[in-house]
Amino acid sequence: MEEFTPAIAKLINHFRRLPGVGQKTAQRYAFAVLGKDPEEVAEFARDLVEARARTRFCSVCGAYSEEDVCELCKTRDPATICVVAYPKDVLSIERLHDFKGAYHVLGGTISPLKGVTPDRLRIRELTERVAKGDVREVIMATNPDVEGDATAYYVARLLKPFAVKVTRLAQGVQIGSDLEYADEVTLSRAMNNRSVLE
Amino acid sequence: MEEFTPAIAKLINHFRRLPGVGQKTAQRYAFAVLGKDPEEVAEFARDLVEARARTRFCSVCGAYSEEDVCELCKTRDPATICVVAYPKDVLSIERLHDFKGAYHVLGGTISPLKGVTPDRLRIRELTERVAKGDVREVIMATNPDVEGDATAYYVARLLKPFAVKVTRLAQGVQIGSDLEYADEVTLSRAMNNRSVLE
Repeated sequence: MEEFTPAIAKLINHFRRLPGVGQKTAQRYAFAVLGKDPEEVAEFARDLVEARARTRFCSVCGAYSEEDVCELCKTRDPATICVVAYPKDVLSIERLHDFKGAYHVLGGTISPLKGVTPDRLRIRELTERVAKGDVREVIMATNPDVEGDATAYYVARLLKPFAVKVTRLAQGVQIGSDLEYADEVTLSRAMNNRSVLE
Repeated sequence: MEEFTPAIAKLINHFRRLPGVGQKTAQRYAFAVLGKDPEEVAEFARDLVEARARTRFCSVCGAYSEEDVCELCKTRDPATICVVAYPKDVLSIERLHDFKGAYHVLGGTISPLKGVTPDRLRIRELTERVAKGDVREVIMATNPDVEGDATAYYVARLLKPFAVKVTRLAQGVQIGSDLEYADEVTLSRAMNNRSVLE
């Protein structure tokens, strides 16, 4: 016999499409849903659709927002722009409770292999923001990998004509880690970027 | 500022209520949903509600079914009944592709501490099935833990007056674990070595 009823099989398939969810975890989630009150499940379903429908990209920074311009863009110092690849990266920076500037979400990183060319990212929007002249610093906070680095250098070169400082998150050995476990590339970069102790 | 828009925060909360999902995983799922096509999200939502609405308990064995009597009850040999605690446990046994009998889902195990007394489980329904006289063997396949054992012994004693053999899965399955995570070989051996409860 079929292992699951058609309705349960469909639900499992949806859960499987979430990141990092395999067959067993998806089954577990599906059975958890079947054990809930129908009202709670209906609410879950409604909130799924609502979250997707209400969420759009802020017209200024490109982060998730329920309005045309997001709360961050309205309240932050626009002289410093932190550039990230994805909306979720804004959260990582916000966790610092330290950064008081604004954001700019590119929507990805340059990756010719995956067909992501600069014109498919929100790079033009960034240069337009900088061109307005109020920006003093652009912090490139794309991931410390090949594509993130390439994107950072590309943007830095593009912004050369403007009177703006372009910086990159420091790359080096992780705080609290052990040198023994640092990979060679990280260690090599940490060595090259060594700073003066005074 | 709020870390998330209200709609996203709500969605994260729903994901957090799934088993084993913490704040970070829930955020990851929520952002994955925001990255999907609205059509796919709508389908997910609809299938959530449908799975919950269509799924009921089989009136005979108590497993999940889309009809009054499930496919298993209609096709399997009713002379052998495998008794499990939850509907999901039926899947674990079915994975053996070996058991040809029918099932009976109790809906839990006896647990005075959690307020689960025998009358809150489908034990009466089981004795009624046995009382009809066609059942030759009842295999107690509740989890190999304290509550599962207690439930097995309770049912065995209750079925004493009937001419039925009551067996228990051999304790080859790991003590203190959950059927859901048993590997097929262990489960298959436990099935073959089931012992008589007296």
